[in-house]
Amino acid sequence: MQMIIGGNYVDASDKAVKDVLDPGTMEVIETIPMATEEDVKMAVAAAKEGQKVWEKIPLHTRIDILRKFHDLFIGEKDAFVELAAKEMGKTVGHAEAEVLNAASLIEHFCDAARTLKGESYPAGDHYSNEADMMITVREPHGVVACILPFNFPFELFCHKVVPALLMGNAVVIKPATETPLCNLKMAGLLLEAGVEPKAVNFITGSGGKVGSWITANKDVDAVTFTGSTAVGTEIAKKCAENLTRVSLELGGNDALIVLEDADMDYAVAEVIGGRAYCSGQVCCANKRILVQNSIKGEFTEKLIEALKKEKPGNQFDPESTYGPQVSEKAAIEVEGYIEETIKQGGKLLLGGKRFDRTFIEPTVIEVTKDMDVALDMEIFGPVWPIIGFDTIEEACEISNASMYGLSGGVITNDINKGMHIAKTMEAGCCVVNGGGCYRAPGQPFGGYKMSGIGAEGGTYTLEEMSQVKSIVLRNAYK
Amino acid sequence: MQMIIGGNYVDASDKAVKDVLDPGTMEVIETIPMATEEDVKMAVAAAKEGQKVWEKIPLHTRIDILRKFHDLFIGEKDAFVELAAKEMGKTVGHAEAEVLNAASLIEHFCDAARTLKGESYPAGDHYSNEADMMITVREPHGVVACILPFNFPFELFCHKVVPALLMGNAVVIKPATETPLCNLKMAGLLLEAGVEPKAVNFITGSGGKVGSWITANKDVDAVTFTGSTAVGTEIAKKCAENLTRVSLELGGNDALIVLEDADMDYAVAEVIGGRAYCSGQVCCANKRILVQNSIKGEFTEKLIEALKKEKPGNQFDPESTYGPQVSEKAAIEVEGYIEETIKQGGKLLLGGKRFDRTFIEPTVIEVTKDMDVALDMEIFGPVWPIIGFDTIEEACEISNASMYGLSGGVITNDINKGMHIAKTMEAGCCVVNGGGCYRAPGQPFGGYKMSGIGAEGGTYTLEEMSQVKSIVLRNAYK
Amino acid sequence: MQMIIGGNYVDASDKAVKDVLDPGTMEVIETIPMATEEDVKMAVAAAKEGQKVWEKIPLHTRIDILRKFHDLFIGEKDAFVELAAKEMGKTVGHAEAEVLNAASLIEHFCDAARTLKGESYPAGDHYSNEADMMITVREPHGVVACILPFNFPFELFCHKVVPALLMGNAVVIKPATETPLCNLKMAGLLLEAGVEPKAVNFITGSGGKVGSWITANKDVDAVTFTGSTAVGTEIAKKCAENLTRVSLELGGNDALIVLEDADMDYAVAEVIGGRAYCSGQVCCANKRILVQNSIKGEFTEKLIEALKKEKPGNQFDPESTYGPQVSEKAAIEVEGYIEETIKQGGKLLLGGKRFDRTFIEPTVIEVTKDMDVALDMEIFGPVWPIIGFDTIEEACEISNASMYGLSGGVITNDINKGMHIAKTMEAGCCVVNGGGCYRAPGQPFGGYKMSGIGAEGGTYTLEEMSQVKSIVLRNAYK
Amino acid sequence: MQMIIGGNYVDASDKAVKDVLDPGTMEVIETIPMATEEDVKMAVAAAKEGQKVWEKIPLHTRIDILRKFHDLFIGEKDAFVELAAKEMGKTVGHAEAEVLNAASLIEHFCDAARTLKGESYPAGDHYSNEADMMITVREPHGVVACILPFNFPFELFCHKVVPALLMGNAVVIKPATETPLCNLKMAGLLLEAGVEPKAVNFITGSGGKVGSWITANKDVDAVTFTGSTAVGTEIAKKCAENLTRVSLELGGNDALIVLEDADMDYAVAEVIGGRAYCSGQVCCANKRILVQNSIKGEFTEKLIEALKKEKPGNQFDPESTYGPQVSEKAAIEVEGYIEETIKQGGKLLLGGKRFDRTFIEPTVIEVTKDMDVALDMEIFGPVWPIIGFDTIEEACEISNASMYGLSGGVITNDINKGMHIAKTMEAGCCVVNGGGCYRAPGQPFGGYKMSGIGAEGGTYTLEEMSQVKSIVLRNAYK
Repeated sequence: MQMIIGGNYVDASDKAVKDVLDPGTMEVIETIPMATEEDVKMAVAAAKEGQKVWEKIPLHTRIDILRKFHDLFIGEKDAFVELAAKEMGKTVGHAEAEVLNAASLIEHFCDAARTLKGESYPAGDHYSNEADMMITVREPHGVVACILPFNFPFELFCHKVVPALLMGNAVVIKPATETPLCNLKMAGLLLEAGVEPKAVNFITGSGGKVGSWITANKDVDAVTFTGSTAVGTEIAKKCAENLTRVSLELGGNDALIVLEDADMDYAVAEVIGGRAYCSGQVCCANKRILVQNSIKGEFTEKLIEALKKEKPGNQFDPESTYGPQVSEKAAIEVEGYIEETIKQGGKLLLGGKRFDRTFIEPTVIEVTKDMDVALDMEIFGPVWPIIGFDTIEEACEISNASMYGLSGGVITNDINKGMHIAKTMEAGCCVVNGGGCYRAPGQPFGGYKMSGIGAEGGTYTLEEMSQVKSIVLRNAYK
Repeated sequence: MQMIIGGNYVDASDKAVKDVLDPGTMEVIETIPMATEEDVKMAVAAAKEGQKVWEKIPLHTRIDILRKFHDLFIGEKDAFVELAAKEMGKTVGHAEAEVLNAASLIEHFCDAARTLKGESYPAGDHYSNEADMMITVREPHGVVACILPFNFPFELFCHKVVPALLMGNAVVIKPATETPLCNLKMAGLLLEAGVEPKAVNFITGSGGKVGSWITANKDVDAVTFTGSTAVGTEIAKKCAENLTRVSLELGGNDALIVLEDADMDYAVAEVIGGRAYCSGQVCCANKRILVQNSIKGEFTEKLIEALKKEKPGNQFDPESTYGPQVSEKAAIEVEGYIEETIKQGGKLLLGGKRFDRTFIEPTVIEVTKDMDVALDMEIFGPVWPIIGFDTIEEACEISNASMYGLSGGVITNDINKGMHIAKTMEAGCCVVNGGGCYRAPGQPFGGYKMSGIGAEGGTYTLEEMSQVKSIVLRNAYK
Repeated sequence: MQMIIGGNYVDASDKAVKDVLDPGTMEVIETIPMATEEDVKMAVAAAKEGQKVWEKIPLHTRIDILRKFHDLFIGEKDAFVELAAKEMGKTVGHAEAEVLNAASLIEHFCDAARTLKGESYPAGDHYSNEADMMITVREPHGVVACILPFNFPFELFCHKVVPALLMGNAVVIKPATETPLCNLKMAGLLLEAGVEPKAVNFITGSGGKVGSWITANKDVDAVTFTGSTAVGTEIAKKCAENLTRVSLELGGNDALIVLEDADMDYAVAEVIGGRAYCSGQVCCANKRILVQNSIKGEFTEKLIEALKKEKPGNQFDPESTYGPQVSEKAAIEVEGYIEETIKQGGKLLLGGKRFDRTFIEPTVIEVTKDMDVALDMEIFGPVWPIIGFDTIEEACEISNASMYGLSGGVITNDINKGMHIAKTMEAGCCVVNGGGCYRAPGQPFGGYKMSGIGAEGGTYTLEEMSQVKSIVLRNAYK
Repeated sequence: MQMIIGGNYVDASDKAVKDVLDPGTMEVIETIPMATEEDVKMAVAAAKEGQKVWEKIPLHTRIDILRKFHDLFIGEKDAFVELAAKEMGKTVGHAEAEVLNAASLIEHFCDAARTLKGESYPAGDHYSNEADMMITVREPHGVVACILPFNFPFELFCHKVVPALLMGNAVVIKPATETPLCNLKMAGLLLEAGVEPKAVNFITGSGGKVGSWITANKDVDAVTFTGSTAVGTEIAKKCAENLTRVSLELGGNDALIVLEDADMDYAVAEVIGGRAYCSGQVCCANKRILVQNSIKGEFTEKLIEALKKEKPGNQFDPESTYGPQVSEKAAIEVEGYIEETIKQGGKLLLGGKRFDRTFIEPTVIEVTKDMDVALDMEIFGPVWPIIGFDTIEEACEISNASMYGLSGGVITNDINKGMHIAKTMEAGCCVVNGGGCYRAPGQPFGGYKMSGIGAEGGTYTLEEMSQVKSIVLRNAYK
C-alpha cells in the first residue's frame, strides 16, 4: 500500500516498507511505507495549504461531502469487515459491530455540526458593555494530526478525522502500524467523496518517529490521539513546546463493581461482554471486577462456568467468540502480566495461557486490592481479575486508587447505591446497572487523571476540533 | 508579610525573605517569604486535604461564601486601591477601575455557578442506547494552582481563584513576586468569608522555582496561569508529565486596525485608551497600530498631539495619566525594545526615553511590517508602533503574521469590513469599532496560537475549573 | 390598605373596599380597594409608560435593584412571616419556609438573568446563508400582568414579578383577594429598591372582574397566572383575542405511587409531608395516593397512625402542624368533596370533618379508581384518598386517567421501576423516591394537559417573560 | 384526490368534493373531498391510536424514516415543482427554490432532533436539593394538528409535519383549500417512507369548518398554524377551551427601511426580490418600503425603472418573473386594497391593475405614514408602498406603529444605525443590510404582537412540538 500526501498516493521517500500481518495466522498480508521525516513535513505542508481551501467550503457542503463519505463507507461494509478482521484480528462479528457504530458516528457528527451554535451575550450584563453586542463563533485550528490506535480502526477514524474535517481543518492521519489498511481505504473514500485533496494526508511508519515528527512540526495546530498513557504523555510534552492543542484518550483500568443485590446472570453477562469484546483490547473494558464479598464465591463460580463457553479462535471462524490479540508482542505482554500477577499472589482460577502465538485463554484470577493489577497495571487482554470488597465505600476506594480514571460501572438496581457510586467514582463515566465498554456517539468520553485530557464525542469533539472566537460590536446598539 | 498554608499564616521554612518595592519611588514597602520546596509540598498537601472537605459543602453555601468574600472585598475598596497603586504602580484611577471590575467578576462567577447546567441526552439517538438515560455532571479537579501575574492582581485573582473555589476545588495561589500584597489580603478575606481553611493556600517566592515545584507535584490536578508565553510554555511542558490540566493566558501583540472610514477622534481616543492603561502593561492592549495609508499621516499627527497630553508620573499624583512600569527591570526591557526597534529602522516620532528609573515616555514609532515589533516582539509599555497598510487583506496579513493571537480590533463603522476582519483575524477576540483592552466578565477570553490554551471567563472558566462526568442509567426506561 | 398605580398609593376610584379576614379567627384584619375598570386602565397605562423607562435601565442595574429588593425582603422576614400567617392561615413554620424559598428564588432569577445567553448560528448551515451572521437576543414583552394565587404569596410573587422585571417588563400585579397584604408590602419594597415607579402597579379587587379587565386590555402584552384550571381557561380564552402571551400554572391531582419495595416509614412521611403542608392547599401536593395492593393494608394503617399525630389548629399556635383553610368557603368546599367522595362509595378511615368553620381534620378515604377523586376532582385540603393497584402499568393508567398532569411521584428505590414510571407519567414532573410538593428554583415547572401551559422556573421563566428576536447581518462576512 | 385517515386513502364520508383550479388558467385540475365532522373525528382518533405506536419507535429510527422521506421527496423534485406551479401559481423557478428549501429543512430537523439535549441541574443550587439529581427530558404532545397555508406548501409542511413526527407525535394535516395536491403527495411519501400509518392523517375541506372541528377536538393536543391573523386568533380562542397548545405564524406588514447611505442598486434589488417573490404572497415579504427622504426621489425612480422589467405571466412561461395570485378572490382583494389606498390619498406611480382575472401589475404607490397600508393593512400581492421619513427614530416609529411585528429589515452598511434599528424594531426578526423574506432553517421565526405566538425553526420547533418533563431522583446522591 501507499501513503497519501496532498491527495496523491505515494511511497516513502526512501522506499522503506514494513510488513502488515494477519494476527490470526501470522501471514504477511501487505506492506506499508515507513515514512521519513521529509514525508511528514510534506504531508503537513500539503495539509496547511489544503486547509486554506477547505475551510472556505461552506459548512453545508462539508456536511454533504462527509455524508457522501458515510454512504461510500457503508456501501463497502463487507469489504471493510473482512479487512478489519484480517489486519486487526477481531472476529467478523466484532468487526461488523464496529462498522455500524462508525457509520452511526459519521451521521452523528454531521448532525451535530449543522446545529452547533455559538452564544450571544446579553448587553449590559456588566457596567461597561451596555451597548455592546458580543457573540462567539467557532473556527478551525488549521492542521489536525489524528493519531489512531489499532483496536477500533473504524470508530476512532470517525471520532477524529470526521469532526476535524467538518469543522474546517485539514488532517494528517497516522494509523496504528498494525492496522493501517482499513484506515487507508477510509482516507481514500474521503477523497472520493470530495474532500479537498490536500486536506487529506495519510502517513504510515514507526509510531514513535512519525509521532514525534508530527508533534514537533510547528504547522500542526492540534493533535488528537488515542492510545497508551505512556505515549500520550510523550505527545503532550512535545505538543507543549509549541502550545499545540492536544486531546488524549489514554489507558484505563476500569472498575466494574458488582453489588450483592445484582441480578447474578445479568452481572455475569455484562462482565463477560465488556471484556471478551475484541479480545479485551478495549480502553474502556471492565478490567477490574470488584465483587461484594457476600456474593463473591457464587459470582466467581458462575463467571468461570460462563467463560468456559468462550471460544477464542481464528477471527474468521464463525465459532470463535473472540480472536487473537493484535500481535504476538501484545499477546506476550498479556501473558507476562498474568504471570506477574500470579507472582504477586494472584490465584489463577481459569485459563492463564497464551496459545498459537497470539491467542490468550479466558483467564480469571482472584487478586487483592494491593496488587498491581488492582491499581495501575492495564491488561489489554481477556483477563478477569476478581477483587472482593465489603462495603460500598471500600469499593469506591479500590476503584479510585488507580492512577487511571477512564470509565467504570456498577451492577445494582438500587438508585441510591448506584448514584452514590457514580458520583464518587473518579472516572469520566460511570454506567449504573451496566457493564463497561460503554460509549455513545454524543457522550463526552474522556478520562480523569492519567486516562487522558479532553472529552471526545458529539459536540464535545466538534468543540475540541475548533477554537472559540468572540466578536464584539462595540457600542453597536447606541 | 507571611504566606498561608492550610489556613495558617507562616514564614518560609528557612525564613528567607525578599523585598517588595513601590515602583513609583523604589522604596521598600514590605518583605515576602521565599518559599522552599518543602513549603510548597505542605501547601499542596493541605489543599488536597481541604478539598475533600470543601467539595462536600453544598453549591449554594459555596456561593454564599464567595458572595460574602465579594462584600468584604468591596468593603475595603479604598485600602485595596491604595495597596495596588503602591505595589504595582498603577494610578489610583486605574486601580479603582480594577477593583470594580474584580467585584463584578466575583458576582458574575457566583451567578454563573448557580446556573451552570449539564446535559441530558435523548434516549435512542443511537441504536444501542434506546432505553438509557445519560446525563453529564461536573466535578472539581481537586487541587488547582493559580499562578498570577503582576498587572491585574484583583481581576486575575477573581478570574482564577473564585471560580476554582466555586466549582469545589482547593487552591494554591502563587502571586507575582512584585505584587503579592493585594493578593495576600484577598486570600485572607476568603478565609474570613468562610472558605474551608485548608482549601486556601498562598505561597510566595521565586516564580521559576515555586512554579516548577507546583507543576511537578502530582497532587496538583490543574494549573491556571496568566503570564508570558515563555513561562507558560515551560509550565505546559511540566504539566504534561503528569497530564495535569493547564489553562494558559499568555502574551499578545494585538493589532488594532484603523480603517480610512474611521472617525479620527474616536480612533485616536481608543488607540490611546487601550495602550496607556496601566502603562501599557496589559496582555490584550493594542500593541500594533495598523493604519490605512490614506489616513496614516493625519492619524499619526493627531495621535502624537493627543499623546503629548499624557502625563506619566507617580501613581498617587492625581495629575498622572499613567504610572511607572512595575519594576526597573521591566522599564529597562521596554527601553531596550524601543532601542532595538529604532535599530531595525523604526522612526521615532515621540518620546522613547525611560526616566526616573521606572517611567517610560509615551512613545510613537513608525515601523514596517517586517520588523520584530510588527511580529513577535511584545512590548509591555506605553509604546505605539505605527504600521501602514493599503488594503484590508494586507492589514489581515500583517495582523496574522505574528506568532501571537490574543485579541485585536478594528476601527470602522462599516459592517462588512468590520465583520470580514473579525472573521479573518487569527485571534481569540476581535472588537469591531473599538480598541483593544476588551474583556467582559462572561466572555471566553483566550488566545490563539502562542497566546495561550483555553478560554477564560464566565461559564468557560467554570468548565475549565471542573471536569465533565457522564452518568448512564443503563436500560433505565425499560 | 391602598393599591399602587404608577408608583402611587391610591384607593379605588369609587372608594369601594372589601374585608380581609384572618381565617384562623375569622376576624377582619384589613380592607382592600375593589378596583374599577378605570383603575385597571390607569394601571396598565402607567405600566406601559413605565416600561419604556425601565427597559432602558441596563441589565446589571436591574439585577442590582432586584438584589436590593431581596435584601429588603429578607430584612423584614419576621414581619412577613406574621403577616402571611395572619392573612393566609398557614402556620408560622410554613410561612417561614416560604419566605426562605422566596428569597432563594429572587437570587436564582438574578443569577439566571445575568447569564441568560442567546445564540449565534453557524454561517453556511444552509446554502443561502453562507456569509450571514445570525444571532438571537431577548426582548421584554412590555406590560406583564401577574395574577397571583393565595397559597404561596411570597413564592409566586417571586416566580412572576421578579423575572418579569428582570427582563425589562413593567408589571400589573393582581393578588388573590384573600391574601393581598404580603403582596402589597412586597410591591412597596420594589419601589423602595429602586424599580421605576410607573413600572410597578398593584391592583386589588374581584378576581373575575379585574382579571377580565386586565386580559381584555390591548396594552397588556403578557399574562402570567397561577390558580385554578377553570379560571386559567377563561384567561386563556380572553388572552387569545389579542394574542396576548399567557403562562398558566393550574390545578393538579397529582398521583404519588407507593411501590411494594418502598421503605414504609419514609413513604408515610413523604405522603404526609407533601399533603399536610399548607393544609393541603398546594397545586403540586400529592393528592392521590396509589398504593400497591400487597402493602396497602399495612401502609394505610401506618399512615392513619401517623396522621393521628397531626394537629390542625390556629396558625400562631406552635403546637399546630397545619392551620385553617384559607377561607370558610374553601373549607366548605373541601368538606363537600369529602362528602361527595363518600357518597360515591369512598370508605372513610380517618377524620372527614370540618371544625371551627375553617379547619379540616386529617382525612383518609379508601377509594377506587373510577371515583371522581381518583380522576378530576382536585381537593385543596388535608385529605388522603388511598387507591390500590396491582401492577406498575395499572398505577400508570390510574395516574394518567386524570385530565390533570401537573406533577407526581413514586416511592421506590428500584431504578427501573422508578424511571419507567417517571417516563410514563403524563405530568410535567415526576419525583422518583420522593413525595410531591417538589419545586426547585431552576426547575421547569409546568403542567401537562389541563394543568397549564408553559413551564415556570429559572431560565424557563426568563424566556417566558421575554420574546426572542433574531438579528441577521446579511452577507456580513463577505 | 382522496384524504388519508389512519393510513388509508378515503373520500369524504358524504362524498362531497370541491374543485382545485390552476390560477394561471382558471382550469379545474382536481377535486378534493370536503371532510365532514365525522371524518375529522375519525382522523383524530386514528392519530391518537397511531401516536401510541409511533412514539415507541426509537428516535434514531424516526430520523431514518424522515431521512428516507427526504430522499423520496427530492427524488420527485420535478413532479413536485410542476404540481406546485400548477395548483399555487408560483413560477417554476419559485417552485424549484421552494423544493430545495424544503429538502434542506427536512435535513435540518433530522439533524437537530438527534442532538436536542435536555438539561441536568447542579445538585445543591438551592438549600433543599443538595443530593437530588434533576434532569429534563422532552416528550411528545400526542396528536398535533398542522394547518397549512397556500403560499409555501413544501416549506410549511416541512416546518410543521416533519418536526411533529420527529418528536414522536402523530399528525392531522389540513392543507390550504387552494393547494392540497403537493401536500397530499408529501403525506403519501411519509407513509411510503415508513411512518406508522395511523400517525399520518390528511384532511381536506372548508378551512373554517375543518379548522374548528379540529381545534374543538379534545384529543388534539397541539395545533400549529400558519395563516392570517384573523383565522389565527379564532384558532387561539378555540384552543384555549381545552388548553390545547398552539403555535401561530400569522400576518405581517414588514417594514424595509432604506437609509440614505444605502447602495442604491443593492437596495432596489433587495426591495424587489423580497416582494415580487411568489407574487408578493409571502408573510415576511417587505410590505412597507420606508425610504429616507433625502434619497426618496432617486430611489423611487430607480425602483420604478427596475419594476418595469418585471413580467407577471403564466407560471409555466419561462419569461414570467412572477405568476398569478393564488385565486381570483385573492387577486380581487389585492386590487381592492390598492384602490382603497389610492382613495386614502396614495399616489399611484406604477401599475395598479388586475388583469387576466388573477394577475396584478407591479404596483408602486407613494403613501403617508397614517394610511392603512402603512399600518395594519397587509397586502398579499406585488405592491410597493413607499413611505418617506427623515430620521432613524421616525423610521422606527412608523415601523412599530403597525399591529403586526413579524419581521423587517434595513438597508445600510453602518453598524450603529443597523444595530440600533434592529434592536428598536418590534418584530421577531430584523435583517441588517438585507431585504425581507428572510428565513433560515434554524432561525426562531415568529412574530411579535399580532403576528403570532411562538417561534418556529430548528430546535425551537422541536421544543414547540414537545413538552418538557423534569425527572427528579430525590436524594439520589445520598
